[in-house]
Amino acid sequence: MSSRNETAVNVIFFDVFGTVVDWRKSLLRLLAEFGAREGLAADWPAFLDVWKAGYRPAMDAVITGARPWINLDDMYMERLEQIAGDFGLADLSPAQKQTIVNLWLRIEPWPDAIAGLTRLGARHTLATLSNGSFAWMTEIVKFGRLPFDAIVTAENAKVYKPHPRCYQTALDLMGLASTPERAMLVACHNYDLEAARGHGMKTAFLPRKEYGPDQTQDQAPESDWDVVADDLIGVADKMGC
Amino acid sequence: MSSRNETAVNVIFFDVFGTVVDWRKSLLRLLAEFGAREGLAADWPAFLDVWKAGYRPAMDAVITGARPWINLDDMYMERLEQIAGDFGLADLSPAQKQTIVNLWLRIEPWPDAIAGLTRLGARHTLATLSNGSFAWMTEIVKFGRLPFDAIVTAENAKVYKPHPRCYQTALDLMGLASTPERAMLVACHNYDLEAARGHGMKTAFLPRKEYGPDQTQDQAPESDWDVVADDLIGVADKMGC
Repeated sequence: MSSRNETAVNVIFFDVFGTVVDWRKSLLRLLAEFGAREGLAADWPAFLDVWKAGYRPAMDAVITGARPWINLDDMYMERLEQIAGDFGLADLSPAQKQTIVNLWLRIEPWPDAIAGLTRLGARHTLATLSNGSFAWMTEIVKFGRLPFDAIVTAENAKVYKPHPRCYQTALDLMGLASTPERAMLVACHNYDLEAARGHGMKTAFLPRKEYGPDQTQDQAPESDWDVVADDLIGVADKMGC
Repeated sequence: MSSRNETAVNVIFFDVFGTVVDWRKSLLRLLAEFGAREGLAADWPAFLDVWKAGYRPAMDAVITGARPWINLDDMYMERLEQIAGDFGLADLSPAQKQTIVNLWLRIEPWPDAIAGLTRLGARHTLATLSNGSFAWMTEIVKFGRLPFDAIVTAENAKVYKPHPRCYQTALDLMGLASTPERAMLVACHNYDLEAARGHGMKTAFLPRKEYGPDQTQDQAPESDWDVVADDLIGVADKMGC
């Protein structure tokens, strides 16, 4: 970015799942620990793949209006109940199900996250812009000791990314509705950046292997994003922080 | 509070202006510095009294529906333009007016605030519940290095405290709509706690001299609030943090 553009960005928003936290690695460990503790044998990696795969269709149903607003944690509970039987988990108690859903509250940041955010936060205001519920995101950020200044999520707009209202609500809340170029979105998903750019926001892309070592999607920028870096420390470097 | 109640509180909300930040002392200093810098002589303490006095009536007009939603910073600009002439400030430039309104972004916490919040935050999730705009509150918290986990303000509900929707929105966002007793409000204003209690929230009162040494209002609890303390360190003590 030119130095003019750098100084123009006041607020940096971040996608969180994938971009800031390594949800899959954390959940594989947490699910295995849960299974061992409860004496439950299951193919946890396969379970996680199928469980997470319910995420996009459920969100899309909210975006299209096919179903009313539902929080992400409630979606994961719903999906867990749909698929548990397929993984030999039909007899989970309600408490066990809640424990599984709540494992999301203990996912760990990527190794570069705290250092990168700390540097960016010294010169910019940092906020989440996640599809997670507001309460979930608050807890995930607190658990990870992530130095965000504010939590903003899809719940504030009652619709999921990439619906336009999500980005508009984020800009409105930060007082940037008429100056969206003073906001940036950092994400490891090209579709998210495309939507943010559609609102006039700056964009920063970094590739992540959030789905594991075999991931091929979103490993390269699919447009001329304002910043492209290897990780959040790289974003801080390129922003001159 | 009993130890049972202590452990039941997950999220502690805080009123901010008066309760966490000493806005008047900060603004008296910042206004005097601004006047000296700009060569503007005015009775700044009297100006501040009259400026701040526009706050409650303007918010009440939103609460009653007499006027549509307007953010607190816009209210302060509106009020500044109404009263500037009465204080020999009729010739302020637009930039000077914006500078004056933005002095609110550099108000300092009370001396006990960071220590008290840090202790409370080790065991609880901490969020603002302020009448300030979302962007303003984010900046005030960042400037003061206040260890809040999330920003929630009247702007999230598009109505001011003590309108019920304000408290309900805060509970909804924290996933506590059906368990409001797991939330607490800390405030130096009895009216705010009364409204929070009306929603089933726990309450903590502390007296502040936010209007200066002669303040007589809100110097004592006007009900049997769950916690009464001298300051935020005292709240932490009584919460067993």
